[in-house]
Amino acid sequence: MNKIGKQTIQFSSPPYILETSSIVGPKEAQGPLAKYFDQCLEDEFWGEKTWEKAESKIIKENVNSVIAKSCIPSQNIDYCFAGDLLNQCISSSFGLREINIPFFGIFGACSTFVEGMSLGSIFIDSGAAKNVLCATSSHFCSAEKQFRFPLELGNQRPPTAQWTVTGSGAAILSNTNLDKVCPQVTYITPGKIVDMGVKDANNMGAAMAPAALDTLITHLQDTGRKPSYYDAIITGDLGYVGKEILTEMAETQGYNIKNNYNDCGVLIFDKNAQDTHAGGSGCGCVGSVFSGYFYKKLKEKSINRLLLIATGALMNSTSSQQGESIPGIAHAIAIENLVFGDGGKKQDFGNK
Amino acid sequence: MNKIGKQTIQFSSPPYILETSSIVGPKEAQGPLAKYFDQCLEDEFWGEKTWEKAESKIIKENVNSVIAKSCIPSQNIDYCFAGDLLNQCISSSFGLREINIPFFGIFGACSTFVEGMSLGSIFIDSGAAKNVLCATSSHFCSAEKQFRFPLELGNQRPPTAQWTVTGSGAAILSNTNLDKVCPQVTYITPGKIVDMGVKDANNMGAAMAPAALDTLITHLQDTGRKPSYYDAIITGDLGYVGKEILTEMAETQGYNIKNNYNDCGVLIFDKNAQDTHAGGSGCGCVGSVFSGYFYKKLKEKSINRLLLIATGALMNSTSSQQGESIPGIAHAIAIENLVFGDGGKKQDFGNK
Repeated sequence: MNKIGKQTIQFSSPPYILETSSIVGPKEAQGPLAKYFDQCLEDEFWGEKTWEKAESKIIKENVNSVIAKSCIPSQNIDYCFAGDLLNQCISSSFGLREINIPFFGIFGACSTFVEGMSLGSIFIDSGAAKNVLCATSSHFCSAEKQFRFPLELGNQRPPTAQWTVTGSGAAILSNTNLDKVCPQVTYITPGKIVDMGVKDANNMGAAMAPAALDTLITHLQDTGRKPSYYDAIITGDLGYVGKEILTEMAETQGYNIKNNYNDCGVLIFDKNAQDTHAGGSGCGCVGSVFSGYFYKKLKEKSINRLLLIATGALMNSTSSQQGESIPGIAHAIAIENLVFGDGGKKQDFGNK
Repeated sequence: MNKIGKQTIQFSSPPYILETSSIVGPKEAQGPLAKYFDQCLEDEFWGEKTWEKAESKIIKENVNSVIAKSCIPSQNIDYCFAGDLLNQCISSSFGLREINIPFFGIFGACSTFVEGMSLGSIFIDSGAAKNVLCATSSHFCSAEKQFRFPLELGNQRPPTAQWTVTGSGAAILSNTNLDKVCPQVTYITPGKIVDMGVKDANNMGAAMAPAALDTLITHLQDTGRKPSYYDAIITGDLGYVGKEILTEMAETQGYNIKNNYNDCGVLIFDKNAQDTHAGGSGCGCVGSVFSGYFYKKLKEKSINRLLLIATGALMNSTSSQQGESIPGIAHAIAIENLVFGDGGKKQDFGNK
């Protein structure tokens, strides 16, 4: 692999995304992407006594699902990268304590899924691993309880507030495609922490949009690509507010992303029918929407070049109470169909 | 690099640990290792209004210190790996929000320092980066407040309880030694989550010792090395209780580590004079003791082969309240003097 430009890594043998899996909660199951998810839960507890235990079960079962779908024995998965939003990432560590795979805990708030895919890709292309597992989760109830107010209070939510997705995304990256046609990770652009001073914990989109802009522009400059190179540029969970800010800020910097840009938090809910205000958020948002929806679109070739930019707000409730602003981060990953099914023809994906 | 055995990675061009830095709090400054730390603070606030802000300042200033000592301009540091014990790792993200280096947030509880060194080494040896920064911190007051009781209560602590170190460790890994004689990272053995059912949050040593044993034995089997190969086998923060458990368990498995094994949590405090019960703990424990003490011992060649095993307890206060046990994890890293100063002679470090 090579580092190119300021902060992008180009892979020599782009890792294959061999399989993905997604599980979502009941609200997500009523949204427009419901049919794409592997499993939709009927309630937020899934037979567990607490929301935290339910979230652990979601990531655990989703990881079991992606391993089963990949047909790779779990003992052949070299390393696991996982994280979540709960304090000390207990959803991942409790959910995955029995999988018996060497474990790297990661925390990038809602950017964690792409952070894991980035680290996993480095392991694959470097030869450190043949197969790696990446997983994240979030849960509306455990997140609200931890970051905002007890749900029992029934607090009103401002229009800029986002709705934490109950769900999990999981992917297996591999140095082989096992004769399947799989999208590949061609570039990663890990992001810097960007803090523009936004302090409103009910407006995460505004807090995270500057980080997304920084990573987007850096990625384009580092790779020499234009936004139009990509069939889709997708952010993790900027929601409606952040999406508009990013689109406008990109335009003022000379990058037109109006035609091919969207956001997982916008896509996962029906804003009007579901009362979800500014859209979805959480580690499980980009995780489940990529694993459920975009991976299938890549597989069926209706999307061939995807730039996935997951954003995270690196704060906690104590920092907000102490008057701190909300630092944002965004990690980008380019996922492309390099080999097509019809005879293995390699498409020219040069940087035009 | 190569993966060898079950879960160990051997580096082709072992990354150099170019420089380290350490800052500790006032209690650590009264301990037996005081003279080895770069900076000792006079109080737990360091001019800040809260313990959380003080912890952020500690990691920030420590990172500034290691960058200054390394003489590498910060724009030449490709990526940063950092994490801490605070909810959502705010010490790292707030402390390092201005460094302008692409940032990977990691969480391995008290194992975070070695987790970061492991990931950083992969980046260096793979060519993804030329220089990386690894940093962690912990703070006695912010940790007690978050994980246990308000300090103002003056609660009694059981003899098995450990004392969270106020401090930070930071290291710069590089693909070049800049003509200096530097210890190198030769192997990493990332650990699995191990949960033996220990539920006592005041006995972390017992909860983490089985993970340390698992990683230790795996490392020795994967590399074909014996415990006696190492001048020192050092765990992160098992403390007195965990150290004794690990020593005994290793012996029952046929590994004698009595002569060359010690623990950073045991070393950092004077148990009798400082009333620290089972010893030190926290991300800052192994971070500051490695960066302050062991790095200097490696540089002066009184230790040439070090196996550093950092352990973490992957729990939070909610999981304990919900009756959960405490999963442990341990990541190991082999650090060796491969090139000696007297004419650059390479010593034979074959696996005898």
